[in-house]
Amino acid sequence: MLYQHSIQTYDRTSGSASCRVLPGAGRAVSRGPIGQTGAVAVLATVDLGSSVAVLRRAEARDVPAIVDLLAADQLGATRDGVRAAEDLAAYLRAFQAIDADRAHLLVVAEAGADIVATLQLSFLPGLARRGALRAQIEAVRVHEDYRGRRLGEALMTWAIDEARRRGCALVQLTSDKSRHAAHRFYTRLGFVASHEGMKLSL
Amino acid sequence: MLYQHSIQTYDRTSGSASCRVLPGAGRAVSRGPIGQTGAVAVLATVDLGSSVAVLRRAEARDVPAIVDLLAADQLGATRDGVRAAEDLAAYLRAFQAIDADRAHLLVVAEAGADIVATLQLSFLPGLARRGALRAQIEAVRVHEDYRGRRLGEALMTWAIDEARRRGCALVQLTSDKSRHAAHRFYTRLGFVASHEGMKLSL
Repeated sequence: MLYQHSIQTYDRTSGSASCRVLPGAGRAVSRGPIGQTGAVAVLATVDLGSSVAVLRRAEARDVPAIVDLLAADQLGATRDGVRAAEDLAAYLRAFQAIDADRAHLLVVAEAGADIVATLQLSFLPGLARRGALRAQIEAVRVHEDYRGRRLGEALMTWAIDEARRRGCALVQLTSDKSRHAAHRFYTRLGFVASHEGMKLSL
Repeated sequence: MLYQHSIQTYDRTSGSASCRVLPGAGRAVSRGPIGQTGAVAVLATVDLGSSVAVLRRAEARDVPAIVDLLAADQLGATRDGVRAAEDLAAYLRAFQAIDADRAHLLVVAEAGADIVATLQLSFLPGLARRGALRAQIEAVRVHEDYRGRRLGEALMTWAIDEARRRGCALVQLTSDKSRHAAHRFYTRLGFVASHEGMKLSL
């Protein structure tokens, strides 16, 4: 296990870790009213060797850094980025929609003062497969300085574990066919490329 | 255009069409508190040549017929079906979760007294692509007697139009790689198989 589940509250204003560490209590964190009390709940901590990253629920103040991660990506460069105030406003509106619904969980990995990875985990009810709840992962990004350090693996493993805790029967994602390294990465984690991922731009 | 948007209310107990037809008002239907007043709102009507199908939001009473459609499918036969009371209870719980959240819309096509097609349309917020709302389509099924009659096309076209009305930038779905006919069908509708659809069973 590359990461440790914990509830580790720290002061939002200083950002310094403190207080309690409660191993194994990640489930309670992810279900609780995170971010409403002035304290930030850590979902897990990840040992990167020379440093540590914390996985936590994203907050509005993280949005510019998340957008930077999206735009730093080869495919995202043409689609994402903040060039004008209205761009940021659109991202913040989307953040509010995600954050207001407990069916969605936008996660960031923070190392020091930097947001170094992100993903969105969504929980979707459906009738198929005996009424199975399914987890869907979107917008997985790891900062290039943090690739090859198993941070992505820890982030994904946390997400899969969280899906299991919420009773999902399936985790699903789509990945652009040009991302060969990503497909190898997801396959190592147990994903099977059994489906065509089809998109229609409106 | 194969189908006509309408609000066509009919009496839930008799199932007979009556009252008003309001062409072009599909948007208001899909956003309203459908199914809460004793009347069923028709999302669209589809001309099948010799008969007509109505597209409407699914209700709890439709669940067994929807499960039959899921189980009649080659891949779904091993995964779905009602063999015991607890099976139906699981499907009904999933239905309640879908029905309670306006981010999800379970649609059926009804011809006469039969449920002959279904799909689930979900609306997912996300930061990627400038905070784009995306529509996701799951569990598309058309009864074999109604294939080749453009009912599937009308159902999908309605869903794409609804995604556009709700301001989505993208419609997405995944389709098992063995479903070659389905891929041709989705490609004809404008979908591009740009992504690998990866699944992990828990």
